[in-house]
Amino acid sequence: MKIDLNADLGEGFGPWRMGEDDALMRLISSANVACGFHAGDPLIMHNTVHLAKAGGIDLGAHVGFPDLMGFGRRQMNIEIKELATYVIYQLGALAGMAAVNGHRMTHMSFHGALGNMVAADAALAEPLVRAVAAFDPTLIISSSSSRAMEGAAEKCGLRVATTFLADRAYDDDCLLVPRKVEGSVIKEPTAVLRRVRQLLEEGTVTALSGKVLRVPAHSILLHGDTPGAVELARTLREEIERMGGRITPISQLLAAS
Amino acid sequence: MKIDLNADLGEGFGPWRMGEDDALMRLISSANVACGFHAGDPLIMHNTVHLAKAGGIDLGAHVGFPDLMGFGRRQMNIEIKELATYVIYQLGALAGMAAVNGHRMTHMSFHGALGNMVAADAALAEPLVRAVAAFDPTLIISSSSSRAMEGAAEKCGLRVATTFLADRAYDDDCLLVPRKVEGSVIKEPTAVLRRVRQLLEEGTVTALSGKVLRVPAHSILLHGDTPGAVELARTLREEIERMGGRITPISQLLAAS
Amino acid sequence: MKIDLNADLGEGFGPWRMGEDDALMRLISSANVACGFHAGDPLIMHNTVHLAKAGGIDLGAHVGFPDLMGFGRRQMNIEIKELATYVIYQLGALAGMAAVNGHRMTHMSFHGALGNMVAADAALAEPLVRAVAAFDPTLIISSSSSRAMEGAAEKCGLRVATTFLADRAYDDDCLLVPRKVEGSVIKEPTAVLRRVRQLLEEGTVTALSGKVLRVPAHSILLHGDTPGAVELARTLREEIERMGGRITPISQLLAAS
Amino acid sequence: MKIDLNADLGEGFGPWRMGEDDALMRLISSANVACGFHAGDPLIMHNTVHLAKAGGIDLGAHVGFPDLMGFGRRQMNIEIKELATYVIYQLGALAGMAAVNGHRMTHMSFHGALGNMVAADAALAEPLVRAVAAFDPTLIISSSSSRAMEGAAEKCGLRVATTFLADRAYDDDCLLVPRKVEGSVIKEPTAVLRRVRQLLEEGTVTALSGKVLRVPAHSILLHGDTPGAVELARTLREEIERMGGRITPISQLLAAS
Repeated sequence: MKIDLNADLGEGFGPWRMGEDDALMRLISSANVACGFHAGDPLIMHNTVHLAKAGGIDLGAHVGFPDLMGFGRRQMNIEIKELATYVIYQLGALAGMAAVNGHRMTHMSFHGALGNMVAADAALAEPLVRAVAAFDPTLIISSSSSRAMEGAAEKCGLRVATTFLADRAYDDDCLLVPRKVEGSVIKEPTAVLRRVRQLLEEGTVTALSGKVLRVPAHSILLHGDTPGAVELARTLREEIERMGGRITPISQLLAAS
Repeated sequence: MKIDLNADLGEGFGPWRMGEDDALMRLISSANVACGFHAGDPLIMHNTVHLAKAGGIDLGAHVGFPDLMGFGRRQMNIEIKELATYVIYQLGALAGMAAVNGHRMTHMSFHGALGNMVAADAALAEPLVRAVAAFDPTLIISSSSSRAMEGAAEKCGLRVATTFLADRAYDDDCLLVPRKVEGSVIKEPTAVLRRVRQLLEEGTVTALSGKVLRVPAHSILLHGDTPGAVELARTLREEIERMGGRITPISQLLAAS
Repeated sequence: MKIDLNADLGEGFGPWRMGEDDALMRLISSANVACGFHAGDPLIMHNTVHLAKAGGIDLGAHVGFPDLMGFGRRQMNIEIKELATYVIYQLGALAGMAAVNGHRMTHMSFHGALGNMVAADAALAEPLVRAVAAFDPTLIISSSSSRAMEGAAEKCGLRVATTFLADRAYDDDCLLVPRKVEGSVIKEPTAVLRRVRQLLEEGTVTALSGKVLRVPAHSILLHGDTPGAVELARTLREEIERMGGRITPISQLLAAS
Repeated sequence: MKIDLNADLGEGFGPWRMGEDDALMRLISSANVACGFHAGDPLIMHNTVHLAKAGGIDLGAHVGFPDLMGFGRRQMNIEIKELATYVIYQLGALAGMAAVNGHRMTHMSFHGALGNMVAADAALAEPLVRAVAAFDPTLIISSSSSRAMEGAAEKCGLRVATTFLADRAYDDDCLLVPRKVEGSVIKEPTAVLRRVRQLLEEGTVTALSGKVLRVPAHSILLHGDTPGAVELARTLREEIERMGGRITPISQLLAAS
């Protein structure tokens, strides 16, 4: 059984750092790199892409709202046509960093509030995914499970890699429960591990309501920005390998058609 | 005699506009588009690239300091290695806009204070031009006359197109006299016209000191941001054609080797 | 009959200008000055305050979302406690400009999307008005007619000056119809003039639905950012004076208790 | 012997933190708070001022260049008249936070590259200090030893508190050696402690050249942003008290005339 491990990297800005990129870079097979709108700056992007290239790690653009102060976690009511150009701008900027590092962008994902909005709203997902396809039709869309995103990608001829967030609660539609809701973030390491095991063995997740849902997963998201996160990530990786999983970059899981 | 006419376009930001892009777009053969650091935002960039594609106009990236409030006209003391990543970021972002519009980036130039600094300093020009070459070795560097830029481009294997600024005074090294200096900006339309005629007929410019200098020129820069500028641009274009000049996009003047 | 004429000024940023501040400054009795979040920068704020002081014009802070690219016209979902600190920051910055110019801040208003949100939502209006009161309990809140704002101000012990927007349609709750709605902006100068006459003679406005509503008004908002706007503003002022109105700064209409 | 202990606080931005503000807040008598230009945002400023008020700690504005990405450590060539308005804007914003927290701003200092520039250049120091005086003539200027700053403050009628940076090398003019120079930052804790002892006992510092210079000091700067910094700060404080020093807020050292 092949599975990708991915993480959000390069989430610093200027003098500030977030997460333990170096440690995570040794555990993952795919990186989602912030592009300067919600986090990241050119130097950080360049250095992160350089590390990804050196580690043979798939490179993706993590695209967000233009809101550094809110880390892209606040909904903004931007006209879709304009928002699509923000997506293209960020994809282009990271592709530039890939070019000078001799690397290749394989995928993209939407960050934070933008990610939640596109996952829940096909009318938003479709034009934004269409913008991604116009930029590069070979890109893979990486997303938590979402019918809106899957439908949009299919219409635009793009592949989707579904990511499982082991430390986030799911609702009955298999969407992420917003961070503000009590119980939305699972902090207990053993609970997180148990959820990964359940996913790998049964292909399911237990929603916040208690309902057991079938959830597809090409990838599992690791975090590096809380105390103990890297240790947990390492344990997760070992557990997956112990269960016979083979850590595989996202682009090798979804061969181009 | 073939010559390119270029202009700096897309220099608005958010709700603000600068210059008469629509009028200029009908007069030029090459556009230099701001990339969001000193001016421009994703929507403006997208719309400007769309117009350039529709008009068959060569597309270039106008790369500047990260200083919207100062319009990139204030020197910033940024480490060269970091500054090189700013250049790549901006090139990538505009290349993204080109990709979704089915257009192609043919050239780039440095804006404002950054432009003045690279034109005067080979130690800065070389690593930045090297970053451009790493991004795309087929790009043309568009620059006012500068030995620093020409040397850097030659070392990096890039072509240079020299732009003549008809309304700016030159010093005895054929560099632009800084804006703050009295007499640096030539406002009298007949004086501007006379300088273009001298360039086309004799290949020279008369420096602020009175000295006559030989100046190469593949291109002439038009402005759209002062009263009467578009009218002057139109007159210039007509005058060039009357003298037998053929307006030709920058990329057709400098065939790739 | 005394009435204030106010306008939103200082809405440029860096090299960009918006509206005809100089012309408006000669027509109004109160200015609402952008504070750097949706528009305005320190130099523009300083110069605008300087002009207001010289003209004996009341000075107010025009407080908006941190979104220059969207000119504060896009809703942002910011936690109220954090948003309150954005309000204080902007008030303080403009008060600083007042201090060095020997002027005094008399009022404040909310701009754009933030203005629409507070006018429609008491749960948002109250904590933000409370922040204003904590900053300076003598400030007047300038607002289009809104029960939410009036209630919040009363609870916090602040005075409210109601502003009439002669060129914007009202709904049946006497709130502004959003810009996106067809018919929300009244462009015909004679219609705008007629609405001002109706306000002054009858104290009413005819809503988009045709319903005639009683609307309080201490002030009328003038615009300077569309072609013909200054001419219309001048006509409005003359019409008001012809009808016997006396143009009076906002702080003289609402004496401190 | 009375001496102030101060630290630069509130140097996070949005989701990012820098330094250990909570620990430092228990060791210092004066805080210099970033104002949103090189670091800091309204929420962080508000929370930092709240803590300072609760701890009875003097509040100062730490004013810097508008360059978050470079943390205000890069020189920017801004016209002095414009730069003065940036200073006022930041002072006003922090004064707003003081007002709503029932606290009072007692001092201000210049951060990073701006701090180095004003300390070395009387022609820059004087107009900027004049802007501070225009904002509030009771503010104390906190500065590392600098004849330019002392002269400017005297001309503008402001008091100066000289701060000693125990971990930074001094040149023969008693100015800080720039960070880029080898040996400019003293990392060895025992060396830092020794320098503080020398200051307290002899009133001198040994410059990088070996020369012993008389240096005035009302205050000592503590850091919180490097590993071990808080532990060192604690040791320094204990050492000062052991030597008979009395930790005293800056405003009590320099009584208003």
